[in-house]
Amino acid sequence: MRRKEFEMEDREEIEAFLKEKHDGVLTFAGTDGWPKAVPLNFVFHADAIYFHGSKMGEKMSGLAADPRAEFVVYEAHAFIPSYFSDPVMACPATVFFRSVRIRGIVSQVEDPEEKADALGALMSAMQPEGGHAPIDPRDPRYVPQLKGVAVLRLDPESVTGKFKFGQNMNEKRRVGVLEGLAQRGLPGDAETADRVREMAGKPRGHC
Amino acid sequence: MRRKEFEMEDREEIEAFLKEKHDGVLTFAGTDGWPKAVPLNFVFHADAIYFHGSKMGEKMSGLAADPRAEFVVYEAHAFIPSYFSDPVMACPATVFFRSVRIRGIVSQVEDPEEKADALGALMSAMQPEGGHAPIDPRDPRYVPQLKGVAVLRLDPESVTGKFKFGQNMNEKRRVGVLEGLAQRGLPGDAETADRVREMAGKPRGHC
Repeated sequence: MRRKEFEMEDREEIEAFLKEKHDGVLTFAGTDGWPKAVPLNFVFHADAIYFHGSKMGEKMSGLAADPRAEFVVYEAHAFIPSYFSDPVMACPATVFFRSVRIRGIVSQVEDPEEKADALGALMSAMQPEGGHAPIDPRDPRYVPQLKGVAVLRLDPESVTGKFKFGQNMNEKRRVGVLEGLAQRGLPGDAETADRVREMAGKPRGHC
Repeated sequence: MRRKEFEMEDREEIEAFLKEKHDGVLTFAGTDGWPKAVPLNFVFHADAIYFHGSKMGEKMSGLAADPRAEFVVYEAHAFIPSYFSDPVMACPATVFFRSVRIRGIVSQVEDPEEKADALGALMSAMQPEGGHAPIDPRDPRYVPQLKGVAVLRLDPESVTGKFKFGQNMNEKRRVGVLEGLAQRGLPGDAETADRVREMAGKPRGHC
């Protein structure tokens, strides 16, 4: 049973998360019939997920045979030890996280303009300070590079966000967790506590 | 083409990485025929990967129908901007990372002893400071909890590590990257530089 109470349906929040992150795992069926899990850098650009890589290999052969894929982006925000909300049982131990799963068909991008545009978007996301010649499909320095690299586009058919920040906790546990985070004070704990407070005020399943 | 030069064949290094990390992505075929990518906490224990979760849902139904899975653990260590080693072209921009992919068959653990042992190992990994009653299958407080939770075991059939720290760079680029990391000085950059130096001295593909 997918736990509906953690599902995130706010498109803006999901897109902000995808813009913030630069890696995820692409999943597809291999030509050997086994599921494959490949970590990749990506950019969310023009309503699609773009990757790049070698023109040969398991990604290309697997996706050429069956282009159905799922890509997942995940961030663990805070480990919540059991004793934040229970002095005895281990069961409440959990991790507060954000994740987004994107399901869709993957195509190989052949158009040099789209390739250059996608790679430029990836560079802007990962190296926003610049420091390189713009990726221009008419720049002779880039022509062979663009020809040699594979660019893949995942067109989202469904996007599911799961943002877990204790929405399912009762008030007593929530207070324990908020006190625990304040006392622990690890990097990120204050931000996690803000999210816990913010999401507690919203109805479950529709954050 | 899997780039052999980044493959990590040192079993100890791979196991150390799996012990250090607490999350990854489990990949399997869904009952709808689509590949699924589910982020999960895990523990590497007794030569297997253990997960826990709900007894119902896409993971359980998908893996019951086809127990073949791949689990991937990934850590991005440092973004290497193109200008560390090239004043013009964007192409050298990359990420240095460690990843391990584990392929195998997933089984549901039914034995309460093994369930308790796996969950205890997960707690020790994630909450090493303790602060809870030990997970004992004879402890009446844990009996219903152990019954209610699903524990899955992935028995590795193949394990592939890919540790990328610029092993394929020529000496000039390596010097540029090491200088860039030293100047940038972000958290983790010094450790990444150590890895670059350490792995440069070893033959490609057999780190």
